[in-house]
Amino acid sequence: MNLKDKIRNIPDFPEKGIIFRDVTTLLKDAEGVQEAIQSMEKVLEGIDFDLVLGPESRGFIFGMPIAYNMKKGFVPIRKKGKLPAEVFSREYDLEYGTATIEMHKDALQKGQKVVIVDDLLATGGTAKAIVEMVESVGAEVVALVFLIELDFLKGRDALHDYNIKSILHY
Amino acid sequence: MNLKDKIRNIPDFPEKGIIFRDVTTLLKDAEGVQEAIQSMEKVLEGIDFDLVLGPESRGFIFGMPIAYNMKKGFVPIRKKGKLPAEVFSREYDLEYGTATIEMHKDALQKGQKVVIVDDLLATGGTAKAIVEMVESVGAEVVALVFLIELDFLKGRDALHDYNIKSILHY
Repeated sequence: MNLKDKIRNIPDFPEKGIIFRDVTTLLKDAEGVQEAIQSMEKVLEGIDFDLVLGPESRGFIFGMPIAYNMKKGFVPIRKKGKLPAEVFSREYDLEYGTATIEMHKDALQKGQKVVIVDDLLATGGTAKAIVEMVESVGAEVVALVFLIELDFLKGRDALHDYNIKSILHY
Repeated sequence: MNLKDKIRNIPDFPEKGIIFRDVTTLLKDAEGVQEAIQSMEKVLEGIDFDLVLGPESRGFIFGMPIAYNMKKGFVPIRKKGKLPAEVFSREYDLEYGTATIEMHKDALQKGQKVVIVDDLLATGGTAKAIVEMVESVGAEVVALVFLIELDFLKGRDALHDYNIKSILHY
């Protein structure tokens, strides 16, 4: 199976000049779900870690099955104001605009090893903000796994010290 | 394991008088993830279906592992403006306020059987809006699975013709 054949390309969404890589066509296909999740898990073989972190909201879609299958906990990274207990907060630049993400202060313990999972690596702004929050509590990012990497946006350069694994490149 | 022991109760969030049932404490616990997902899958045993539908964004967290484990496709139901292709749209009342949800027009085919998965059944507004979208294309809701049901909000009454399975009751 070629996973790229199951991803729909939508020109000029959400802004003119951007080709949106729409994973909903892959997700509604039962075989696509199997193949995508298994490909993302495979790159984590042999890596020791405690928790999967996934940013709202497509990071939930890919992060949770990986957490379940690999018998790990899952930490949701959310947009501002969604988490009900005390949070760490970080503002960062997006491919288009800015955003603030939050993580519960008690989500991680010092010394824990985490894997960040998301659907897409673009400029790396979201991922870098999460890495900074993780490290601020003395936990460690041992890998970042993305279904899709937009190579031309050079998100990898913003994260050059980290173990980045992407399944599909555009 | 008592799953309720892993759920954090937060008084007066997001509004005064509401006790928020915070599943993040359950999710960061690897055993909690196993138990929650397995409990939700178990109530689907013997039910024939094609797709899992999960509303943004906690429906993604519980819906996707179930779709993966049961080898089904997954359809994300999203808030207004997030889906890039043509959508069906529905406005509905929330426990606090109103909202609009959307589903891609090509997400479902006539005759398909779907299961709706979410973390919480409150007044049933979200679930009912999804059911209406599903039925508008001639597909069928064969079950709704929730980790938590707030019995006092009587969401079940709004959905009395449907097969509702909740794991935990408050």
